Amino acid sequence: MDSHRLKDFFTGLQDRIVSELEAFDGRPFHTDSWQRPEGGGGISRLIEDGDVFERGGVNFSHVTGHSLPASATAVRPQLAGRSWEALGVSLVLHPRNPYCPTAHMNVRGFVARKAGEEDVWWFGGGMDMTPYYGRREDVVHFHRTCRDALVPFGDDLYPKYKQWCDAYFFLKHRNEPRGVGGIFFDDLNEGGFERCFGLTQAVGNAFTQAYLPVLAKRRDMPYGERERDFQAYRRGRYVEFNLVWDRGTLFGLQSGGRTESILMSLPPIVKWRYDWQPEAGSGEAELVETFLKPQDWLG
Amino acid sequence: MDSHRLKDFFTGLQDRIVSELEAFDGRPFHTDSWQRPEGGGGISRLIEDGDVFERGGVNFSHVTGHSLPASATAVRPQLAGRSWEALGVSLVLHPRNPYCPTAHMNVRGFVARKAGEEDVWWFGGGMDMTPYYGRREDVVHFHRTCRDALVPFGDDLYPKYKQWCDAYFFLKHRNEPRGVGGIFFDDLNEGGFERCFGLTQAVGNAFTQAYLPVLAKRRDMPYGERERDFQAYRRGRYVEFNLVWDRGTLFGLQSGGRTESILMSLPPIVKWRYDWQPEAGSGEAELVETFLKPQDWLG
Repeated sequence: MDSHRLKDFFTGLQDRIVSELEAFDGRPFHTDSWQRPEGGGGISRLIEDGDVFERGGVNFSHVTGHSLPASATAVRPQLAGRSWEALGVSLVLHPRNPYCPTAHMNVRGFVARKAGEEDVWWFGGGMDMTPYYGRREDVVHFHRTCRDALVPFGDDLYPKYKQWCDAYFFLKHRNEPRGVGGIFFDDLNEGGFERCFGLTQAVGNAFTQAYLPVLAKRRDMPYGERERDFQAYRRGRYVEFNLVWDRGTLFGLQSGGRTESILMSLPPIVKWRYDWQPEAGSGEAELVETFLKPQDWLG
Repeated sequence: MDSHRLKDFFTGLQDRIVSELEAFDGRPFHTDSWQRPEGGGGISRLIEDGDVFERGGVNFSHVTGHSLPASATAVRPQLAGRSWEALGVSLVLHPRNPYCPTAHMNVRGFVARKAGEEDVWWFGGGMDMTPYYGRREDVVHFHRTCRDALVPFGDDLYPKYKQWCDAYFFLKHRNEPRGVGGIFFDDLNEGGFERCFGLTQAVGNAFTQAYLPVLAKRRDMPYGERERDFQAYRRGRYVEFNLVWDRGTLFGLQSGGRTESILMSLPPIVKWRYDWQPEAGSGEAELVETFLKPQDWLG
């Protein structure tokens, strides 16, 4: 497998997304390049205190290793010990306005190599949205865009990847999903390289169409301390998921990844409060009672 | 082993500590009792928006199970499958004033039982302090109190448990200790039950003497937005340690513990900021350069 094509796509995707986000926010993203001592490196593009985005990052990384750890190949134990190469784009955006949802997108490709044997490769990725105050039309738009991106690759994919997303972005210790979901897939190598790479590209390319129209509708909604406070409280759940359950974050932190780039996913201001319960019938209660129940948004 | 003696000690310790903290703060702690579906329960004592303590909790828990999971017995694999009983007190206190350090203390006893065989028991515990603006005399007082509590049980214990603490409360992804340390021990069953229980009691009983004199000196120091901001930023490290590395927190969250009680350890307000570096020569730089270097505080 030729990783140059992947690298070209992923770096191009990062550039295009950042350009769109910069145009949307009005403030430029900062750029940091980094090298990983064990091989490879990355480019982090970040924004803090933007007009729309309070904190966010769009990371490209291309890392390599001499020997795949057994822990990284749960579904393919026979690959342990191979040299490996992983490339991808990962982003998280935390808008300031509590009526604007937080969003996450990731697309990645992986190759494991051994002299005299064929390369083993697979793709993974997805995107999901985490509102503070839910709006059904926003969730429907986000999910519809995800579905439309997948339809050319099979009608069964959206329902399957939607369920996978609900199952993955779930806080077991809260018995609560992270947000309203989206799509998630991993270990994709069915149907040949071109199909799988094409599907991964379609997901990456669909992100701004899925997310920015939602922000455009909500970015100027007036809010006060109450909404900011609830946003900070709910952001605590985002931290809990990413640090306790997210395999990508944990693998990165435990394998010598670049901490500041990985933890760009964490929100700028977060609050924890003991056993806090929203007032019945409030917009805050609606989030948990209506939007944090996995459901068929396109039904 | 008679767990009633442990229960009496731990519940009494919780009461005594909470009374002292209430007298110190001036505001009462709230009480919540809870049951665990799998067996046992606990009493959480909490404070939020106190005069001194912005958020904190002193938890007693007494939990039982029918079959010890292999993951819980890394050093005693032969005990997997035994019925078990764990009792303890765990506390974390986050003062509002950034000149007041955050503190943590935990003491616990564990028994694994099997019909026809002798009970296997052990103790664990410790305490450690996490300042935002370090003061050498405060660190020395804290460590001296820890040492004095251990001396009756052996001169070699303080250096050993101090090193264990430095090794345990360490953020590998930051290559940074959580704070200025203290003492930590686990799997203690040498020298008989009375000695081990006595040592555990001595550690629990020493906590308020180690910590409150530090707070008494710092609680009225004036501070501004700059110090609050740095405190919120550094509290992010506390969250990262507890959610990524702390075995007690992870075991609790993954084994159906009571989430709101376990996560009382998280600070009330936290900030994350990309690659933030303190100004050279500032009090903020001094924390990292001087106080977050493990050293012999009593030398």
